[in-house]
Amino acid sequence: MISVDEARERILAGLAPTASEIIPLAAAWGRVSAASVTARLTQPPQDVSAMDGYALKASDGPRGAVLDVVGNAPAGHPWHGSLATGQALRLFTGSFVPTGADSILLQEDATRTGARVTVNETAVPGRHIRRAGQDFAYGDVLVPAGKRLTARDIGLIAAGNHPWVSVHRAPRVAILATGDEIALPGEPIPPGGIVSSNSHALAALVRAGGGEAVVLPIAADDRAAIAAAADGAKTCDILVTTGGASVGEHDLIQEALGARGLVVDFWKIAMRPGKPLIHGRLGEIPLLGLPGNPVSSLITAILFLVPALAVLSGLPAAPPPVSQAKLGADLAANDHRADHLRARLTLGADGTPVVTAFGKQDSAMLRMLAESDALILRPPHAPAAAMGTLVPIVRLDTLGL
Amino acid sequence: MISVDEARERILAGLAPTASEIIPLAAAWGRVSAASVTARLTQPPQDVSAMDGYALKASDGPRGAVLDVVGNAPAGHPWHGSLATGQALRLFTGSFVPTGADSILLQEDATRTGARVTVNETAVPGRHIRRAGQDFAYGDVLVPAGKRLTARDIGLIAAGNHPWVSVHRAPRVAILATGDEIALPGEPIPPGGIVSSNSHALAALVRAGGGEAVVLPIAADDRAAIAAAADGAKTCDILVTTGGASVGEHDLIQEALGARGLVVDFWKIAMRPGKPLIHGRLGEIPLLGLPGNPVSSLITAILFLVPALAVLSGLPAAPPPVSQAKLGADLAANDHRADHLRARLTLGADGTPVVTAFGKQDSAMLRMLAESDALILRPPHAPAAAMGTLVPIVRLDTLGL
Repeated sequence: MISVDEARERILAGLAPTASEIIPLAAAWGRVSAASVTARLTQPPQDVSAMDGYALKASDGPRGAVLDVVGNAPAGHPWHGSLATGQALRLFTGSFVPTGADSILLQEDATRTGARVTVNETAVPGRHIRRAGQDFAYGDVLVPAGKRLTARDIGLIAAGNHPWVSVHRAPRVAILATGDEIALPGEPIPPGGIVSSNSHALAALVRAGGGEAVVLPIAADDRAAIAAAADGAKTCDILVTTGGASVGEHDLIQEALGARGLVVDFWKIAMRPGKPLIHGRLGEIPLLGLPGNPVSSLITAILFLVPALAVLSGLPAAPPPVSQAKLGADLAANDHRADHLRARLTLGADGTPVVTAFGKQDSAMLRMLAESDALILRPPHAPAAAMGTLVPIVRLDTLGL
Repeated sequence: MISVDEARERILAGLAPTASEIIPLAAAWGRVSAASVTARLTQPPQDVSAMDGYALKASDGPRGAVLDVVGNAPAGHPWHGSLATGQALRLFTGSFVPTGADSILLQEDATRTGARVTVNETAVPGRHIRRAGQDFAYGDVLVPAGKRLTARDIGLIAAGNHPWVSVHRAPRVAILATGDEIALPGEPIPPGGIVSSNSHALAALVRAGGGEAVVLPIAADDRAAIAAAADGAKTCDILVTTGGASVGEHDLIQEALGARGLVVDFWKIAMRPGKPLIHGRLGEIPLLGLPGNPVSSLITAILFLVPALAVLSGLPAAPPPVSQAKLGADLAANDHRADHLRARLTLGADGTPVVTAFGKQDSAMLRMLAESDALILRPPHAPAAAMGTLVPIVRLDTLGL
């Protein structure tokens, strides 16, 4: 059995980012940039006013001075003259500052009378002027390659004058659930059977991680059926199976796909829940064989598949984001397997998050996992920890997982 | 001018959740449940084995006992007999425990010889048995109404045997950018003009908040053009405008839409950036008039539009999630307007997030906003705060905003 960290490193090391594609900027939210985006213009293109008011020469504007208003220049309607001594130009936020002017008099500090304006607050050189390029200059990198694009990035790319963006193709993930006993929701349930939840939960998790799920038909616990279903993964970036890893005395996945050329890297991780996890490669396609148990399947997917989706998407290889919280109740010492305790988060009096593990951690309790806000990470041989101790957690609530 | 909190309360009070629609479970990730989802079956449906091994009567299983193996029952292939004294049934994780049995002997604690099995570890009543309904019982609420569905919820709804889910319709948000000076990315830029970034950033933010954006054509700074463009919002749940709130001496939005029956609730908030913000109602449609400045537009959208999308989606009325971080540098005292400082987050040595405001907070610097991880919330008249002080922040990085 290998450690969680080693398993993740080996899984991620076998993955490469998808190729890039060109998409409209309007479709780019949440996608990962495949190339850096550079500014196609300078913003602002010239010095502009930061306020509504009057452009003038500061040396013309001691308190009490009266200037001639020679024009009116709303944003988008620049005034093309040059300001002479004793002159002022009416302008607004975003208006170009005309040549000859070096200061802006706020409209609330001015008294307008016909074509003249009185200065009520001595002008200061440079005041209320935004310099050309203050936001960015032509050629500046606005967004680096390999960044998941936020709404703010989309705005910045638009401001940089790009209608199209180059992004990594969303990873396609084939999901193959196996088992004689499972049925799709709403379909007849075989005797002794249960409804398949893994494929649906995993497909949602793939979507949360920015991928596209291809849910293959359920395969019976039969070598030929599993091998045939797995052929459906041929145009996908990764094949994820659930179940079949330890069916009676058999490891059906290894047996079925062995005939198709499966090369196994490892198949056991020192963790709970979810010890049996196959990592390998089926020809060109990386394979992640998750446990059939729904809780184990989802937790191993959060620990390994979500980071795998990130790497396939062009993001750096990394574990799920870990933060800290104070224990709301004591924890016993852990054994040799890394544990992932389902837990609730609350906010302590001082604003620190407080995390409390559910009392029963049975890996068949899907409802409890759904009600969890976080997983408490318990490393192998972690000593007992008292209430109030800071422990590492993975938040599930904020990521839609 | 009203406070940020009062503005948000008034905006949210005018909104109602969208009606519900039925969608396939496979499309339900990130949607908000419109009704509670109850279990259509009991899980597990009967007592099942938690491990691979043998079912037996505990009273038959002192260490050293030898039992007759009367059958083999993989998960999905239940054995329909009743176990008699001296008998054991080979079964596996998830197999139904037969009548007559009350304990599971682990396969690693058993020695199998032909049709007999020797007990190597004394059996304990109830051990390794998952009781019927341990996860949930028929009729239990699996997911309440008004919850944004995670991948785990999707799995749980599947396990509860639902192929369809009732969710709130995704809110439709009409976005209307106004201004003589703005052009779409890649289109010819008028003299003195800039590229429109607001519509695109807001559309992405609507998507991040679970809504659908309808980006209306850009309207010139002209009453008739603005009124005509706003008619495009008729089938939307909310109309968001940007710009036009203070164009020269005019408030074009109020003037243009006043003729269409706009009723204004308020139009100024004591905040920075983004003082001019119109809230009102255009006939049936709530209107949010955001500032034209890209940074002000995005920050007011994060503070007001994202919570509005939540309410329209069927979630509770709430401000954006606020957490705490330690100041990485001193902050000056604040004036009478609530401020929202663009800032970077790092992780302190003790694991607490550290937040450091950018030195220059000009509201025209979109790139700096895109590079920010968080906004530091500075209430009106907040006193100066020294490095190390805990301050409230809104994280932008984790929400795709």
